Amino acid sequence: MQHLLILGAGRSASSLIQYWCDHAAALEVFVTVADPQVELAIAKTQGCLHTKALSFELENQEETRALVAANDLVISMLPAHLHVQVAMYCLALGKNLLTASYASAEIKALHEVAKAKGILIMMECGLDPGIDHMSAMKVIHELKAKNAAITSFKSYCGGLVAPESDSNPWHYKFSWNPRNVILAGQGTAQYLENNTLKYIPYPQLFLRTTPFELPGLGNFEGYANRDSLSYISLYGLESCQTFVRGTLRGAGYCEAWAQLVKLGLTDDSFSIDISKGMTCKQLVQAFLPASNAEGTLQSQLANYLTIEETSEPMQKLLWLNLLSDTPLELPNASPAQHLQHLLEQKWKLEAADKDMIVMVHAFEYSLQGVSKKLVSRLQIIGDDQVYTAMAKTVGLPLAIVSKMILAGQIKQKGVVLPITEDIYIPVLEELAILGIRFIENESLIN
Amino acid sequence: MQHLLILGAGRSASSLIQYWCDHAAALEVFVTVADPQVELAIAKTQGCLHTKALSFELENQEETRALVAANDLVISMLPAHLHVQVAMYCLALGKNLLTASYASAEIKALHEVAKAKGILIMMECGLDPGIDHMSAMKVIHELKAKNAAITSFKSYCGGLVAPESDSNPWHYKFSWNPRNVILAGQGTAQYLENNTLKYIPYPQLFLRTTPFELPGLGNFEGYANRDSLSYISLYGLESCQTFVRGTLRGAGYCEAWAQLVKLGLTDDSFSIDISKGMTCKQLVQAFLPASNAEGTLQSQLANYLTIEETSEPMQKLLWLNLLSDTPLELPNASPAQHLQHLLEQKWKLEAADKDMIVMVHAFEYSLQGVSKKLVSRLQIIGDDQVYTAMAKTVGLPLAIVSKMILAGQIKQKGVVLPITEDIYIPVLEELAILGIRFIENESLIN
Repeated sequence: MQHLLILGAGRSASSLIQYWCDHAAALEVFVTVADPQVELAIAKTQGCLHTKALSFELENQEETRALVAANDLVISMLPAHLHVQVAMYCLALGKNLLTASYASAEIKALHEVAKAKGILIMMECGLDPGIDHMSAMKVIHELKAKNAAITSFKSYCGGLVAPESDSNPWHYKFSWNPRNVILAGQGTAQYLENNTLKYIPYPQLFLRTTPFELPGLGNFEGYANRDSLSYISLYGLESCQTFVRGTLRGAGYCEAWAQLVKLGLTDDSFSIDISKGMTCKQLVQAFLPASNAEGTLQSQLANYLTIEETSEPMQKLLWLNLLSDTPLELPNASPAQHLQHLLEQKWKLEAADKDMIVMVHAFEYSLQGVSKKLVSRLQIIGDDQVYTAMAKTVGLPLAIVSKMILAGQIKQKGVVLPITEDIYIPVLEELAILGIRFIENESLIN
Repeated sequence: MQHLLILGAGRSASSLIQYWCDHAAALEVFVTVADPQVELAIAKTQGCLHTKALSFELENQEETRALVAANDLVISMLPAHLHVQVAMYCLALGKNLLTASYASAEIKALHEVAKAKGILIMMECGLDPGIDHMSAMKVIHELKAKNAAITSFKSYCGGLVAPESDSNPWHYKFSWNPRNVILAGQGTAQYLENNTLKYIPYPQLFLRTTPFELPGLGNFEGYANRDSLSYISLYGLESCQTFVRGTLRGAGYCEAWAQLVKLGLTDDSFSIDISKGMTCKQLVQAFLPASNAEGTLQSQLANYLTIEETSEPMQKLLWLNLLSDTPLELPNASPAQHLQHLLEQKWKLEAADKDMIVMVHAFEYSLQGVSKKLVSRLQIIGDDQVYTAMAKTVGLPLAIVSKMILAGQIKQKGVVLPITEDIYIPVLEELAILGIRFIENESLIN
């Protein structure tokens, strides 16, 4: 019997745990699910054979050490900055580690040590990063096998709301960590366009978007992720003149979000003193230039943002009740935290709502003098609020990879990403059986 | 004999050390000047009685402990983030500490411990912070003594270039740490205007400036410092409807700097790979939107920044050779570091150049039903490149305060700022004798 430890039973872990509930007995694996909130672990393992739910605190070193020592593989669903601590236990105790998070510089630094000890630290095995790498690498390897020269790669992914649950002008509801949505893009995005390096500073990021029309789904737009450049060599796409990875939103979202950025409401660097009372409207007012104090607040805001009072972005801002007399509620919170608090109410995934994942890879390549375009696309709708499209697409690749690691099917050691055939072929095949399937469309470029 | 330790002999310490060279013997104080670059300490103490120059590394705990233990008072001229470490030695060994830096949250947290141990940690005793507090508090206390109601306080200070050495269109040369100039204002500036809280996000900061015409000196403009609000209660100015502290620059500087901010060149959050070569022009090009690729680079840049090609800000950018084919030289440096490297050449204080300090406090108050304005102003020109106006105005208040501490004239304990009469009156009096003198002008407000 092999032993698997899943650390963290939050919303992204639902489908991962469900997969193991379904397979643990048959695969002769015993699964321990540990979470600081043990009730989450209990609820998600209820009625499952070969599983156990535990309370756990990463800070409790003895407990964590004993937990890791008793298992063969650890999947960390903890917040990304905690993975290094988990990795240290795994290295010390000779255990493999699997996560759905980006391989940070700290994690990458463990590569040689892990390799020397024969340990696998498998990173970026969720949706984005995860399924994006696997599905892109499959197409890239297939095109290369045909001797095609890939000249352009654009890849976008978004965790969105399903069309049937899309009931607000932003076309967005939260299906994962809201804080990441509020702080998205802070920094400078870097990518390659027509063989030229491109940098987009944060205040411009949501204004320089790429439109996507997805047949049957409607209009979307993508903004560039902070780091596309480091994936060029990882994907073996040094031949590309254009290479960008980004995030997908419904059409119109970005232009309106850019207004919140310009206004200053996404700033997370200082706390607001609300001890004397402060309303939403007063917060907006504080960000407006004083010289601009004629007319209604709404016209001042439109004027400052240089948008029309009746424009779409303005309608979206008003729908958030940004200009209301609602008092701010969080003591010593940043503008970004107040904005998050407001959005958590307005963009809540309601009981009957379903979420949606959309991923698009657009390749351009030339083969025997003919220029072609290939679009590979994934669309997944969630079952409900627990088994969301996000939980499925993050959790199922982790589940399949963990099964493969326990079965000894992955031979690589050190810090590894799922970009090689031995990993992505079986994972994508099983994902397709589970309903996570890419549709490819090829066309000529005139 | 009392013993004074000065840690750091860099450019801001020149006048402080000179003062003690002039007075150590008469005041029966022995002064040790310690710097990691011992040649700096040697050069600045050459020929001075009662002084000694030492090499010193803060990381060498035994050495630092022995050095602090052998003295009665420590003046730290080290980078601000190192003061806490120095304070720990002072607290452990029962020694007083004096600096010209802002009292950080970490330093403020030491107040009760220091008080209990009878130690004085005297902060913000340089120019800005330092002379600004002292000179403002003098006027505030005088106005309050007359029963005046102060309604507005605006205070700006700039380390600039003297008019006779002003030879570039930015009207600026470096007289202190260039990195602080490049990264200035990152965050959100907060102040009070007409009883309304005002926040200015970084991209707007250099566009929302206050013009100042200073008779005999020309036109200036001020941008708001990050934190003005916390000084309202410190100054006892809760009655003010407007309260802002800021930084002064020559007219036109801010509008041009705002273009560098918009372009993205002040970003310090990522490194540029120059291994394949990159020119200044290519760096600018990387920040321009790709959709914008018609016309010359200069017209693309003007177009993106929405300024005229022949405008003043554009002329200032061109004078920096931003669009030149000069290769970038620093490996793995951020855009901000490359910009700093460029500006260090263009804004160098040359051998014959003199710097200038300008400080302006503008008060509005009402007294017996009459509204008045009081402007208190300081202007200091440096002697040369060593005894700069910056070195004098940072170093001399420190020198005088250190003399007072050694003479037992400051009774306060804990973390203290120079905002009380017992400190600022003798300091301002001696500064006036040394040529650092405010001129006050009062006028009626119609």
